[in-house]
Amino acid sequence: MNYKSINFSEKLNLFNEHWQPKVISEMNDYQFKIAKIEGEFIWHSHKDTDETFIVLKGEIKIDFKDGKVVVKQGEMFVVPAGVEHRPSSYEESHIMLIEPKGVVNTGEIVDSNLRAENDVWI
Amino acid sequence: MNYKSINFSEKLNLFNEHWQPKVISEMNDYQFKIAKIEGEFIWHSHKDTDETFIVLKGEIKIDFKDGKVVVKQGEMFVVPAGVEHRPSSYEESHIMLIEPKGVVNTGEIVDSNLRAENDVWI
Repeated sequence: MNYKSINFSEKLNLFNEHWQPKVISEMNDYQFKIAKIEGEFIWHSHKDTDETFIVLKGEIKIDFKDGKVVVKQGEMFVVPAGVEHRPSSYEESHIMLIEPKGVVNTGEIVDSNLRAENDVWI
Repeated sequence: MNYKSINFSEKLNLFNEHWQPKVISEMNDYQFKIAKIEGEFIWHSHKDTDETFIVLKGEIKIDFKDGKVVVKQGEMFVVPAGVEHRPSSYEESHIMLIEPKGVVNTGEIVDSNLRAENDVWI
């Protein structure tokens, strides 16, 4: 069998658009997605699942209604299910998201123009 | 609220032992564990779950009965459920494992002296 590792930089070099997560791998019913982000996303929540952010490059901020967290390269943060949050990045950052298959990036906000197509592999 | 990111390097600086995964975060019923590894682990499998390896530093090899994969810093690999595998690292490497809570590091091999205590947080 020919087994191959997944290289984050190689995958990130394959696209440039912002806020459009791309699936790079799966574990059970979870997916690993990478994204390039810049500027401010919308407030949203995922009522049924936690959502993991790992920063591969740069520095992001996640606002909450009662605080915020800065997550830098080499760091992670898990947003608990149901918690409203607003990710942002002053300059372009590269992140990996881990969450169950089928989770929509804009959460409960289904009519946002930031809603990305789901299950797009790269 | 005071939210805090999890810094991989800071957590890795807190211990030195090999093959003893430490939990740094949870997402739903999954855990993120970091470990320092060097040398060769035992052949084992996890019949009920996939297992994710992310290499934070160094380079590891995972042998399979019908092949192998090398996973370097900035790369990941998901070992499918039930697949016998043997991780190794020629020099010390630092990894992050993602898998459901309660998974034993030696899989179906319960009497190995490499079996680590579970659910140890750092």
